Amino acid sequence: MKAQEKPLGSESISKTRVRLWLRLLKISRGIESELRENLRKEFGSTLPRFDVMAALNRNKDGMKMSGISGELMVSNGNVTGIVDRLVAEGFVIREPVPGDRRASRVRLTRRGQKEFDTQATAHEAWIDMLLGSFNAEKANEMIHCIEEAALHETGQESK
Amino acid sequence: MKAQEKPLGSESISKTRVRLWLRLLKISRGIESELRENLRKEFGSTLPRFDVMAALNRNKDGMKMSGISGELMVSNGNVTGIVDRLVAEGFVIREPVPGDRRASRVRLTRRGQKEFDTQATAHEAWIDMLLGSFNAEKANEMIHCIEEAALHETGQESK
Repeated sequence: MKAQEKPLGSESISKTRVRLWLRLLKISRGIESELRENLRKEFGSTLPRFDVMAALNRNKDGMKMSGISGELMVSNGNVTGIVDRLVAEGFVIREPVPGDRRASRVRLTRRGQKEFDTQATAHEAWIDMLLGSFNAEKANEMIHCIEEAALHETGQESK
Repeated sequence: MKAQEKPLGSESISKTRVRLWLRLLKISRGIESELRENLRKEFGSTLPRFDVMAALNRNKDGMKMSGISGELMVSNGNVTGIVDRLVAEGFVIREPVPGDRRASRVRLTRRGQKEFDTQATAHEAWIDMLLGSFNAEKANEMIHCIEEAALHETGQESK
């Protein structure tokens, strides 16, 4: 609707970028809210918990707490609470780091790995449905565009 | 890195869609976190507050509370708190709805409109920088792709 108020050619690039941002925000909030709901209903779990387990799944040798929060862009405090609960449930263990007494390393237990595999399969099927209108070509094109943008953003930050 | 583990052609479409989702999530979280930080530093404000004012700016005749939370995908409770504070600061007023005693309509005051215009100009400049790697053609292409996906998602929900 908004695009029709003005011919596209006369819209400034910054206005177009704001429109893109609003679309990005809307689609990711929409998908996040579906995933939260599905994780709650199917597994009694949450998105941050799933994200922590996914990070540990990508790093089978374990991760330091700072590594987990760095990857997730959530605060260390939140990660501590999530890991505490995962430890209590037997999905995750804390191990000492050789040569560094103050640090500990966290990794999935066999039980945690099995639970994550089940949840990841469901997660993949939900995403497959929610992003069902993207064929491989379109999806890869979007991925490519976003990766370029991400590099640009990092470039701005390092100034 | 992951894409190199397997030739792209052999990746299943659901795995590609998951990769797309992870990129979408990462870019929108990254931009959101920049915007939160900027709004806090420059205007002592927050993203939900900005979003509420933006919704009221798009609806100059005012909105019901349910209309605001519908547009923002946040809970009614949150919107009430945000609107209460905006009213206290003189940026927003509540007006009765003719013919509906229980409902009230919320709209920007002249002062609120001025404040929003200032913040929106800054917001547009931030987005313009953060999404600086998207030229008009690329940005419009992404917008088009996302809009198609959004329609698809809605189709799933209405089943």
